Amino acid sequence: MNAPLPAHLLPDMAKRETPAALVDALKSRFSDRCSTALVVREQHGRDESSFAAPPPAAVVFAESTLEVADAVKLAAQYNVPVIPFGVGTSLEGHLLAIQGGISIDVSRMNKVLSINAEDLTVTVQPGVTRKQLNEEIKSTGLFFPIDPGADATLGGMSATRASGTNAVRYGTMRENVLALQVVTASGEVIRTGTRAKKSSAGYDLTRLMVGSEGTLGVITEVTVKLYPLPEAISAAICSFPSIEAAVRTTIEVIQLGVPIARVELIDHNTVRMVNKHSKLTLREEPMLLMEFHGTPGSVKEQAELVQELASNHGGNAFEWASTPEERTRLWTARHNAYFAAIQSRPGCRAISTDTCVPISRLADCLLESVAEVDASGIPYFLVGHVGDGNFHFGYLINPDDPAERAAAEVLNHKLVSRALALEGTCTGEHGVGLHKMDFLVTEAGDGAVNMMRTIKRALDPKNIMNPGKIFSI
Amino acid sequence: MNAPLPAHLLPDMAKRETPAALVDALKSRFSDRCSTALVVREQHGRDESSFAAPPPAAVVFAESTLEVADAVKLAAQYNVPVIPFGVGTSLEGHLLAIQGGISIDVSRMNKVLSINAEDLTVTVQPGVTRKQLNEEIKSTGLFFPIDPGADATLGGMSATRASGTNAVRYGTMRENVLALQVVTASGEVIRTGTRAKKSSAGYDLTRLMVGSEGTLGVITEVTVKLYPLPEAISAAICSFPSIEAAVRTTIEVIQLGVPIARVELIDHNTVRMVNKHSKLTLREEPMLLMEFHGTPGSVKEQAELVQELASNHGGNAFEWASTPEERTRLWTARHNAYFAAIQSRPGCRAISTDTCVPISRLADCLLESVAEVDASGIPYFLVGHVGDGNFHFGYLINPDDPAERAAAEVLNHKLVSRALALEGTCTGEHGVGLHKMDFLVTEAGDGAVNMMRTIKRALDPKNIMNPGKIFSI
Repeated sequence: MNAPLPAHLLPDMAKRETPAALVDALKSRFSDRCSTALVVREQHGRDESSFAAPPPAAVVFAESTLEVADAVKLAAQYNVPVIPFGVGTSLEGHLLAIQGGISIDVSRMNKVLSINAEDLTVTVQPGVTRKQLNEEIKSTGLFFPIDPGADATLGGMSATRASGTNAVRYGTMRENVLALQVVTASGEVIRTGTRAKKSSAGYDLTRLMVGSEGTLGVITEVTVKLYPLPEAISAAICSFPSIEAAVRTTIEVIQLGVPIARVELIDHNTVRMVNKHSKLTLREEPMLLMEFHGTPGSVKEQAELVQELASNHGGNAFEWASTPEERTRLWTARHNAYFAAIQSRPGCRAISTDTCVPISRLADCLLESVAEVDASGIPYFLVGHVGDGNFHFGYLINPDDPAERAAAEVLNHKLVSRALALEGTCTGEHGVGLHKMDFLVTEAGDGAVNMMRTIKRALDPKNIMNPGKIFSI
Repeated sequence: MNAPLPAHLLPDMAKRETPAALVDALKSRFSDRCSTALVVREQHGRDESSFAAPPPAAVVFAESTLEVADAVKLAAQYNVPVIPFGVGTSLEGHLLAIQGGISIDVSRMNKVLSINAEDLTVTVQPGVTRKQLNEEIKSTGLFFPIDPGADATLGGMSATRASGTNAVRYGTMRENVLALQVVTASGEVIRTGTRAKKSSAGYDLTRLMVGSEGTLGVITEVTVKLYPLPEAISAAICSFPSIEAAVRTTIEVIQLGVPIARVELIDHNTVRMVNKHSKLTLREEPMLLMEFHGTPGSVKEQAELVQELASNHGGNAFEWASTPEERTRLWTARHNAYFAAIQSRPGCRAISTDTCVPISRLADCLLESVAEVDASGIPYFLVGHVGDGNFHFGYLINPDDPAERAAAEVLNHKLVSRALALEGTCTGEHGVGLHKMDFLVTEAGDGAVNMMRTIKRALDPKNIMNPGKIFSI
């Protein structure tokens, strides 16, 4: 059972009526692509977060930008909330219809519109997922590196400013989205940015939309950067005597400027869960899972240097996954850590944390937090994009035990406070959604959050675009 | 003589009174750090652009964030424009007091506030220049790569989203500013971002401010990324039989993903001017000036690959500048290209262009434009950060000859139209300022520019922050 929304969100929950006239108008415009079936609405009224809210009143399956614009215009006319929906992998309650309204499902807008291989760019509809994109561009010798684990849509990844395992080398959606097409709160279609690699042409609306979590408009096209597939790729795992040893190694790798493509921490708990789930026999110790991209010479150089740093901290010899199949198996295991963890405690829910700190603070932040969770007795997994200073605890709670839920919230609260005191952020890549609204105020301050509110009010005066997320109005 | 402002800017020129009471209040608050001397006002009422406008009514030399806030509050009280001023290297008229008002000079706010070498970040006051910064962090083994040529301030570089020669590898101010402190239009002090490398915590106010050209607030602190000084750096020049050959080489370098740190095109005109100005004997042919950063092995690999690509296009053997002194001499010559060009035609003014296109369109955009300028008979220089698809013509006009000025504007107009048709931008790194307001509308569309206006009105309801720049209100 998911939890009711916390009390502080209740003022935003004042459910706005979705008039029958709007649903009629949507049905008339979209016929059977506007659904009011409970099962469809419920599927669109939840995500991977642990909150519960009533489902949206209707779901529109849009197939074009024009259709999105029409649906938004109708919603605006009736002053009803609009919640964009991709494939539902949000972890922070972004998709919950906490003020009622309609869900606009863009998963059928899943065409790759133009591949400009010579420019290393591609333009896609928002429902294209990252795996689909990489499949469709395979023949070009290019790839799209952003990999948040889940096979999320490019629209959703833009909306939450997602990143993941490759960000340490290739950046996040912030660095990789070049241009967008957006349906605004009034149903107007605008374009932000161009395919030029850089620009000083006015306000950076692209980056204002990236990370705006559906609260400023519906993203209907995304142009992102691509990268040449590296000539050589090698993946290696290295076990360490302690989390601290793994983290100290990572810090040195980053401080020396090694262009490592991936460096993921997996703690011994999680290795155990992953072994069981993916039938692997990884050494059940804290480990780093690394990937090196480059020419054969530079990959060798990087790996030798990192191996040396790891040895200085008691790391074991690298175990290499040199074939694509072995690499895929390792990364699949990493990506399945979340599900492996969930299965380790039947019936549990995971409450995920997402702090990110400057790299020199990583050891302090992580080790104190590990000690705290260990002391609490709550089972957990721990994985981290540690090269970026970003890591996730997943507290595996019994959702029917309010005491466990409360204990997890206390742990999260302590963790976030620690990260903020160390000049970090409450969310490295998941977004604020419903869960981190208070933390955002602590992190950014009233002044900055009020500036966000002012922008929101100006661009969405009726407060219909995914209202009640990021901050209360 | 600088030119009067074009007619289409006149509606914005309706000069707003700067009441004597405001000047009195500023003098009382800042005593002799508020100047109304004509020479001081005139120095703050111009930049490197070719426009003329009446100077600001007063100049305040602020020494702290609090002082900036106080000056803004007083200006807001009297509804008077505020124009932030660093060291005056803008090329687009950003600093001109076209609606009157006061200039806030932040050049005395030039302290490096905190160097966090372990995190590869530094926080500075806005008046710190890029050369000063690199001097002050020299002992850390780190450097700040963004290099727009001029020794601009970090505040000004943030405000215009500057980039320059190293951007092809290290990105622009967009990618390198982590956090800001900003005085808003009401005089409130806010912070945007943290020192964490990535974040999904709410709207990206940092990137909204970066490139906002002083129209949304005064930047009073800047936190940027630093990079480890590469183990090896090599610079080389390579001459080509034609601009096309140099550009085709560059396109292949980028498409192959070579992590080249700098790749600058200098046309034969400009080589001639630079030779004369810097007493060099470079071959007077189109050339690429390149720099490679990395380990000794990777620098060698990159250089060999690029040499091979260059040879295929008829490029000569690389001439290496391997000592730091030789490198500095070459880059100084490159940075002096603008002044070398100005001196090549005594009494001339340069009208600089700044288009940037997707890399595959670079040859088309550049070559057609070169043919056009050659046909016009107007002397010019041509330099380009071609790895990013960005290049600058400088039309060297006689400022007292309206026909030459008009001809240069026609050339620029054709160039920008061509770049936009090729999915590029009218400004890669200089900003919109006064000169590109019409182009911005063509590039971004009414919808996006209206969204910018809406944000501006919401955050600066009195329209006092550098009004009349980027777009008319």
